[in-house]
Amino acid sequence: MAEDDDSSKPSASHPPNPLLDDAGPLADPQERRVIFAALDSFHQYRPNAHYNTTHRRRQNLYALPSSQWQMLASPPLSILDTLNAVDDALDHNADLADEIVRLGLAAFGLPEFTPKDSVMNWQGKAKANDISKAHSTIRQFYRDWSHEGFTLEVEPLLRTVISDLESYLPPIQANVGLPSLLLPGAGLGRVLFELALRGYHATGNEISYHQLLASNFILNASHHANQYQIYPFCHTFTNVVSRSNQLKCHTVPDVHPGEAFSQRLAAALPVGEMNMTAGDFVLSYSTPESKDTFDGVVTVFFIDTAPNLVRYIETVRNCLRTGGIWVNIGPLLWHFDDRAPGGAHNHDDEDDHDHDHDDDHREARTNKGSPDQPSSRHRRDSDFEEDKGIAEPGSFELTNEEVLLLVSRMGFEMIKHELLPAHSGYIQDPHSLLQNRYRCSHWVARKVDVVDP
Amino acid sequence: MAEDDDSSKPSASHPPNPLLDDAGPLADPQERRVIFAALDSFHQYRPNAHYNTTHRRRQNLYALPSSQWQMLASPPLSILDTLNAVDDALDHNADLADEIVRLGLAAFGLPEFTPKDSVMNWQGKAKANDISKAHSTIRQFYRDWSHEGFTLEVEPLLRTVISDLESYLPPIQANVGLPSLLLPGAGLGRVLFELALRGYHATGNEISYHQLLASNFILNASHHANQYQIYPFCHTFTNVVSRSNQLKCHTVPDVHPGEAFSQRLAAALPVGEMNMTAGDFVLSYSTPESKDTFDGVVTVFFIDTAPNLVRYIETVRNCLRTGGIWVNIGPLLWHFDDRAPGGAHNHDDEDDHDHDHDDDHREARTNKGSPDQPSSRHRRDSDFEEDKGIAEPGSFELTNEEVLLLVSRMGFEMIKHELLPAHSGYIQDPHSLLQNRYRCSHWVARKVDVVDP
Repeated sequence: MAEDDDSSKPSASHPPNPLLDDAGPLADPQERRVIFAALDSFHQYRPNAHYNTTHRRRQNLYALPSSQWQMLASPPLSILDTLNAVDDALDHNADLADEIVRLGLAAFGLPEFTPKDSVMNWQGKAKANDISKAHSTIRQFYRDWSHEGFTLEVEPLLRTVISDLESYLPPIQANVGLPSLLLPGAGLGRVLFELALRGYHATGNEISYHQLLASNFILNASHHANQYQIYPFCHTFTNVVSRSNQLKCHTVPDVHPGEAFSQRLAAALPVGEMNMTAGDFVLSYSTPESKDTFDGVVTVFFIDTAPNLVRYIETVRNCLRTGGIWVNIGPLLWHFDDRAPGGAHNHDDEDDHDHDHDDDHREARTNKGSPDQPSSRHRRDSDFEEDKGIAEPGSFELTNEEVLLLVSRMGFEMIKHELLPAHSGYIQDPHSLLQNRYRCSHWVARKVDVVDP
Repeated sequence: MAEDDDSSKPSASHPPNPLLDDAGPLADPQERRVIFAALDSFHQYRPNAHYNTTHRRRQNLYALPSSQWQMLASPPLSILDTLNAVDDALDHNADLADEIVRLGLAAFGLPEFTPKDSVMNWQGKAKANDISKAHSTIRQFYRDWSHEGFTLEVEPLLRTVISDLESYLPPIQANVGLPSLLLPGAGLGRVLFELALRGYHATGNEISYHQLLASNFILNASHHANQYQIYPFCHTFTNVVSRSNQLKCHTVPDVHPGEAFSQRLAAALPVGEMNMTAGDFVLSYSTPESKDTFDGVVTVFFIDTAPNLVRYIETVRNCLRTGGIWVNIGPLLWHFDDRAPGGAHNHDDEDDHDHDHDDDHREARTNKGSPDQPSSRHRRDSDFEEDKGIAEPGSFELTNEEVLLLVSRMGFEMIKHELLPAHSGYIQDPHSLLQNRYRCSHWVARKVDVVDP
């Protein structure tokens, strides 16, 4: 599962492509199925988005009495013009999705067209849930790689992380190499990139092929800053103040990673290596080979993706050297809160084993209003029937106070802790009439020598 | 459908019971089915809540390696003690649910036990979706009838509404009777009660039998203030800061309606009549008999429940006298945003016709984070398969700017308008790490004489 190949670590200006690992993920039928579903889901973004966003609304409109739809179609409402403008916006998003597919196919050495009966035929493999992940991944470019999204949602967290690292793990120390950091749940790689840029050897880990394909594209294959136009909120017809808000254009990436590295290097400033590994965090980093590997672990909006938090904490402890620093910032939206008893073991089909749960989490983050609602529970159960999720038996959901106690108990000294005010959005349209904001739990812990669990 | 029987209007201190209307809703098999499902859903609250909240978590816990669950069960985490405390809290919620059933059965003249083959056997009729509505209705007591919920969520909106009414429709005018108000989507009746208390003849309209049963209970059958203990957030294991927050107790009702009316009357202050009608807003108030009936219409978190906003606006215009005032406050979370094209007409079974859509809306309000998400769309579609919703063809979702244009175009003078800051929670735990806040669109419009649609 984990393709963490240290020998292939590239230089900072040429981040690695975990899809090309020697392990050859396409050789494994289960892995292949997940990769093909992810590729196909981006391929299907364009027709799916048009169908669900504008085609269905045109159908609904024409189902109205003609006097009504004609009034809505006339100025000043001009609702059909709006739907045409949304179609144009969707096409820009789809252009980005198509680029992700193109690069992904090239990375795996796959042709665009394959005979239908070929085992290498990737088309038509995405299920509804995969396509929904492609949609959320496109929206996530807003958070990570647009100027406004990064400034509003990521930069404040990043500043906190950097301030902690400068206090407890400064990038430049006498007679020591650059510190190494692990970032589980690296997603589209923005925090990873920012930390490497500031002189840390930064390794990201990510389980989702949707995220891996998209981060590979933005980190390695965009040609210049602001190359692509995206319309992250153009699908949203609810809680909208004005059409100009709904149709606001953002460009990505706001920073070109290669250029940024080059500028730092030209100024003789240290930059770190940037590395991405594919696979489940626990399986990848709880091994004896990973023991005491990193100087720091940075978890941003990550720990609540745990099927089992004890395993996450054990894994952080395993791969962190004694004295190493764990910086955490994020809420506690436990993504396995409402899984069925016994977890995925209750399901027959475990094809997606270890693959989809992290994507499911991201959807949970952006979809769940009040996760304890029974109907939300029902939705999630049906998601699991489709997704399977990670086959980790048992789950439990701790309060923030209890998480702090557990981390302390499991071999960490809690250096500092605070609850931040409710300022953190997650792919939040700042103009929407509905504002979902997280209060983040922020803490810094140090791995201590003696464990007494 | 609409049981608006003007002749039966009671005095303010004895609000009416729409369930007892002469029309006899139990005579209609479809109506009976919906009523039985609502009654049964409250009856099933207790076992359902225990099963899904604590039983499943105990099962998950024991699926962990024994060293792990023993650590979690030991102090200071003591997670099994937490589950026991949650069970106790659920029982308090269930006591309230049981009282609602008891009063509902009495109102319909139904016995608690009925032979299974009887057409009057109401037990076992609730589907998962009905039970989920019982859960959200119990939580809604927090918003409407607990001191903290009312103070945080309803009172600020109410103050705005009262201020508007005092400006444009004062309760006491020379030589005129008390003004009459219609409140569509009256829900648990708190705003209705507050306006009647301040000297308005206030008629609430509500489509959901879950809400009707619960409002009938709290308005007419509670004996004293703070009679019942509820734990609105005890089901929530996610985004929790501490167990004491999760297990915070609230008492309802914070005000006893009958006592409050008596005190006003004893002080020789005017109080209005309070009336509740059951049924679909459009069907009930677009009739010739309803024409020019009310001096004011007050919509609070309501207009976005419209399957077709044009019909809502036409209905408000129909039942409002010329010169009458429409006060609106709420967001634009269009509840039919993601319905299938053609609406419920696509479905075979329309048993729930006109009944469930409003409940579905309330769930949408409390569940939907980002309603345009494809997976959210899928969830809603499956809801509709279960619910059917209202059989209103066509739907469309306007921006706030467009709503204002449409209202003006359809025979109203827009007197004032503002977008409020993002302060409005909807059954929001104020201590949660996730804060969902609405910006409300607030406006006052006057029905004008000439229409030029």
